[in-house]
Amino acid sequence: MSALPRVALIGCGRIGQVHARTLTSLRHLCDFAVIDDRNVQAAQVTASFLDVPRATADSEAVIADPDIDAVIIASSTETHAPYIELAASHGKDIFTEKPIALDLESTQQALAAVERAGVRLQVGFQRRFDGGYAAAKQAIEGAELGSIEMIRDAMRDPEPPPVDYIKRSGGLYRDMTVHNFDCVRWLMGEDPVELHATASTLVSDEFRKANDFDTSIVTLRFQSGALASIENSRRSGFGYDVRTEIFGSEGALMVGQSRALPVRRLSASGVLEDHQYFFLERFRDAYREELVAFLTALRDDAPVAVTGEDGRAALVLAYAAERSLRENQPVPIDLKEVSYA
Amino acid sequence: MSALPRVALIGCGRIGQVHARTLTSLRHLCDFAVIDDRNVQAAQVTASFLDVPRATADSEAVIADPDIDAVIIASSTETHAPYIELAASHGKDIFTEKPIALDLESTQQALAAVERAGVRLQVGFQRRFDGGYAAAKQAIEGAELGSIEMIRDAMRDPEPPPVDYIKRSGGLYRDMTVHNFDCVRWLMGEDPVELHATASTLVSDEFRKANDFDTSIVTLRFQSGALASIENSRRSGFGYDVRTEIFGSEGALMVGQSRALPVRRLSASGVLEDHQYFFLERFRDAYREELVAFLTALRDDAPVAVTGEDGRAALVLAYAAERSLRENQPVPIDLKEVSYA
Amino acid sequence: MSALPRVALIGCGRIGQVHARTLTSLRHLCDFAVIDDRNVQAAQVTASFLDVPRATADSEAVIADPDIDAVIIASSTETHAPYIELAASHGKDIFTEKPIALDLESTQQALAAVERAGVRLQVGFQRRFDGGYAAAKQAIEGAELGSIEMIRDAMRDPEPPPVDYIKRSGGLYRDMTVHNFDCVRWLMGEDPVELHATASTLVSDEFRKANDFDTSIVTLRFQSGALASIENSRRSGFGYDVRTEIFGSEGALMVGQSRALPVRRLSASGVLEDHQYFFLERFRDAYREELVAFLTALRDDAPVAVTGEDGRAALVLAYAAERSLRENQPVPIDLKEVSYA
Amino acid sequence: MSALPRVALIGCGRIGQVHARTLTSLRHLCDFAVIDDRNVQAAQVTASFLDVPRATADSEAVIADPDIDAVIIASSTETHAPYIELAASHGKDIFTEKPIALDLESTQQALAAVERAGVRLQVGFQRRFDGGYAAAKQAIEGAELGSIEMIRDAMRDPEPPPVDYIKRSGGLYRDMTVHNFDCVRWLMGEDPVELHATASTLVSDEFRKANDFDTSIVTLRFQSGALASIENSRRSGFGYDVRTEIFGSEGALMVGQSRALPVRRLSASGVLEDHQYFFLERFRDAYREELVAFLTALRDDAPVAVTGEDGRAALVLAYAAERSLRENQPVPIDLKEVSYA
Repeated sequence: MSALPRVALIGCGRIGQVHARTLTSLRHLCDFAVIDDRNVQAAQVTASFLDVPRATADSEAVIADPDIDAVIIASSTETHAPYIELAASHGKDIFTEKPIALDLESTQQALAAVERAGVRLQVGFQRRFDGGYAAAKQAIEGAELGSIEMIRDAMRDPEPPPVDYIKRSGGLYRDMTVHNFDCVRWLMGEDPVELHATASTLVSDEFRKANDFDTSIVTLRFQSGALASIENSRRSGFGYDVRTEIFGSEGALMVGQSRALPVRRLSASGVLEDHQYFFLERFRDAYREELVAFLTALRDDAPVAVTGEDGRAALVLAYAAERSLRENQPVPIDLKEVSYA
Repeated sequence: MSALPRVALIGCGRIGQVHARTLTSLRHLCDFAVIDDRNVQAAQVTASFLDVPRATADSEAVIADPDIDAVIIASSTETHAPYIELAASHGKDIFTEKPIALDLESTQQALAAVERAGVRLQVGFQRRFDGGYAAAKQAIEGAELGSIEMIRDAMRDPEPPPVDYIKRSGGLYRDMTVHNFDCVRWLMGEDPVELHATASTLVSDEFRKANDFDTSIVTLRFQSGALASIENSRRSGFGYDVRTEIFGSEGALMVGQSRALPVRRLSASGVLEDHQYFFLERFRDAYREELVAFLTALRDDAPVAVTGEDGRAALVLAYAAERSLRENQPVPIDLKEVSYA
Repeated sequence: MSALPRVALIGCGRIGQVHARTLTSLRHLCDFAVIDDRNVQAAQVTASFLDVPRATADSEAVIADPDIDAVIIASSTETHAPYIELAASHGKDIFTEKPIALDLESTQQALAAVERAGVRLQVGFQRRFDGGYAAAKQAIEGAELGSIEMIRDAMRDPEPPPVDYIKRSGGLYRDMTVHNFDCVRWLMGEDPVELHATASTLVSDEFRKANDFDTSIVTLRFQSGALASIENSRRSGFGYDVRTEIFGSEGALMVGQSRALPVRRLSASGVLEDHQYFFLERFRDAYREELVAFLTALRDDAPVAVTGEDGRAALVLAYAAERSLRENQPVPIDLKEVSYA
Repeated sequence: MSALPRVALIGCGRIGQVHARTLTSLRHLCDFAVIDDRNVQAAQVTASFLDVPRATADSEAVIADPDIDAVIIASSTETHAPYIELAASHGKDIFTEKPIALDLESTQQALAAVERAGVRLQVGFQRRFDGGYAAAKQAIEGAELGSIEMIRDAMRDPEPPPVDYIKRSGGLYRDMTVHNFDCVRWLMGEDPVELHATASTLVSDEFRKANDFDTSIVTLRFQSGALASIENSRRSGFGYDVRTEIFGSEGALMVGQSRALPVRRLSASGVLEDHQYFFLERFRDAYREELVAFLTALRDDAPVAVTGEDGRAALVLAYAAERSLRENQPVPIDLKEVSYA
């Protein structure tokens, strides 16, 4: 290894702040050179706090800057695809928050640009880097569970997002279920061949107004005959819920909820434990590990762990779920197929 | 209350043995007068062991016997419907193991006989009498969880049944999923309006040979928009798995697995607990409580808690699941409809 | 085996009721012939309810009755020793609730009578028959934990007993800690050589008035150098607490609390589970198993599992704890020693 | 606040590495100026890795350096007291790893120097900053548990330390139990008035050779009558064990073990979860929070949370435990007393 890659962070909102702190602690893997945000004051405050030399508000200029080797895209969703294309055209390696784009056309255009430029692109499906999910994947690959027969993957947010977010989210399947689609596909180690979706609006009328849903079950069938179900809700009433159960011929493995504190309270009304309330808390380490993996891939000139193709596949499944809902019937899946619109 | 009802147990195989012991301990609620089994030696040994005065092998005669007030039918499945009809025609109150029959026609014929005779019929969906499920039902009815939005109901057997059983079982949906259909419908407190089923044969070729499946996910939609998923497998690899998660607008309730022993073993390889392996262990108390409820209904001249109509409804849902599989599409449900064949 | 032993139950109060129901269900191991209680109506109601042929109120006559082979003594504590002596003198086998007596002199007199008569005497330390504790004992004996180095044994009652009970109880160590003394000694598989006790009155002034304590820690040292601590409280504030942790050179085993129901409730305030509140609930099966063991020993002409000597040893340790408190120093233990008074 | 305090880290061994990483991430609270270690290469590698400007091997010079405002002492135990004295004499604020010293005389000399200089001294009892223990303290102070009646505090290391460490450790009570003494005293919110200790050598002969013990139970009595027990072992056989149970008049709170991963593995042999194996893993966040607290106290010109007096009190209790062992009797405690030697 010669010099460390010079890295720019594009966007320092909620998730950008998490990445900024991680990059600060990874000075052995990168030269964290720039924090960029369209809100230049946010960039400046964060850069000053974290001792990062530059703060800017001109994302395109930073992405094009020859002094930058790699970009971490954590800006708003609609900028992901254009920034990926721009970064690719300037030969930068790219880590992008999910999704690449909310539509398949932009996604494929961005992937084509990455392909042409021969740069690395890692998509921020952070679950794959969580210790629990990594242990699950390892158990599956090590055949500890025998052959995999069913996966149940549940994800519920503590509370619905703000109305503005709902309108721009791309809908439940492209915004939320993409995480599950990626997770189930990755764990299963094969692609689904059929999908059925059913959904309701039970949490808030705002979803209905946005032509969206807030409660859903998607069922998937895989080539091997293995089955999966994905449960989503935009509001749990009890906190962040992300749990996955994997059933194999030799046993099962469950990635479950974590307590925030190792405390039990016993009273006449029972035994009370707490529960991690928010995804940033649940996946704190995973958000770190995905950047470690990305920067390590850069250092070792190795392929990234979550590819643009993985991002595209999850989006294709979201399209399929939308079509299943519209047509009220199962939809055959071919991930090579360009579009389900 | 005048005299105690004189009760005959028809069938003393595996589940019949459980009922026999329960009846012996309920001498304040019944006069346990006869144990009947086509294997008369089994009946005799059990009767002698439990101090029951009569052992017979002529079920029809016992059912018709004017000295008997109520019958507990735990004989083989194909006898349930004819014995119900016979018992009804002689004015006996009836507790029957599920299912009433494996086909809707016999089921409805038996229900009609019960209706005509004006006797009581309770169906052995024992889960409803389990402390955990009863607490769940109570929490739902007490609106502790707010409005119910999703139920996930999983049931897996430790190991597949013998080949003979598979052939006579009526198939996964009529034999196994009926328990889930009843449970979900009961918990939800409303009837489903649509159902989708997907299934595979992953556990054993014997199921395929019997034109049956061993692994399934069924998705249900209810009038209110609430959703449910039911997971089944004929083999878990780790023991009996019956778990139900209920998600409401205000929180969730999970009926989970039980340890057989309150023991944790800590070693360098981790923390090991046990797990109830078999349904008779998991539902030991429930099998008692359902008979207490039946005999109490007799004593108090009150309606039974699980009706023949509940049995029929579960079977109709099994038919619907079979049709959904055959046609590979969602099936609209109308529980008033006579048949899905 | 020829005929079944004819058994009389002496005392049908709280624990007597439990034994009565168990005996009713063990008709293959005994002929449950008499229920005796100084409150004859209680005896009659119970006998009628459970179909037991005789109800009496003359304990001495029943114990002396040649038609009785064995007695189950569940009457009040001060009657245990005289009834044991009487039963022994008439050649009856004896199961007695703990303690044999509250003083060592009566205890030894009763044991001498048993010795002379050559009858069986089993003491009701029911914990030994609990599945959890039995698994612990088995793990220890199977060297699963390596050599045992420390045991921590906690027992707390949900609420303090009534004032009348306090006065007649014999004090914390003879009434409550005897269970722990027996349990720790049994699990450890060796006798203690030294004991230190410290105690307070924190729960209720009634204990102070009775010259008693309600909160205590006793530390024990064994020949091998292994250590044990016993925690007691007359009131937990959360329900019955009986938990034991066993630490060995190869790992640990914890016998813990049990949920009453396999239910988890998730809300914004956390995850709530219940907890068995009362010892009768926690040890329901153990109370059955100890009678099965006693009757099986009778049937097989085998020694009983918990001897009078075990009862005496636990009482000697209680005496030693009282002396340690009085003298505020550790007390050397020799279980052969007659008295610590 | 004017400028950030310039901080030097003295010692970058195991725990020093942890502090170094924390300080790097707290650039908003301190100017992390120097890493010092008698092994200068270790200091250099760490400083280079973490982007810290200076690396030195002359601790005294660094401590005396007028460019340094505060020192974090993580060097070997015998240096703590002299470095504290030196730092105090130069007017530096001080964070020191526990213990201040292994003997009371040096401890009190160091505290006197701190007192004279009027600087801050925080002792590294990191448990107090653990989320679980902080919640326990808060529950106690908020009277959520009513009045506190008993605390049980267990600590076991996964494996015994190297022989060299054993020799220099100061013995079980000064090296290990000090953590428990501080924890119990802090949670109880009052000082103990009597202590009894019993101990054995069961883990390794090396402890015996060093005139030390590896297995111990200490019992404490407090002014209010509340009791506490402390269990220690130098080897658990299953991983790091640090658990505390607090019993009050209204209920109990248990600070328990944590899983390393939220994973359950179910197989025919039971349900397996993992368990944090090492104290650095268990207290990862606490080690961070104690430095945040120290630097925040500096920033806000506020008193520190864990004082030198707390360090001294824990050592006095260790002396008392040693005396109790030697004399085999309970020892009255007066924390004002100079020495128990």
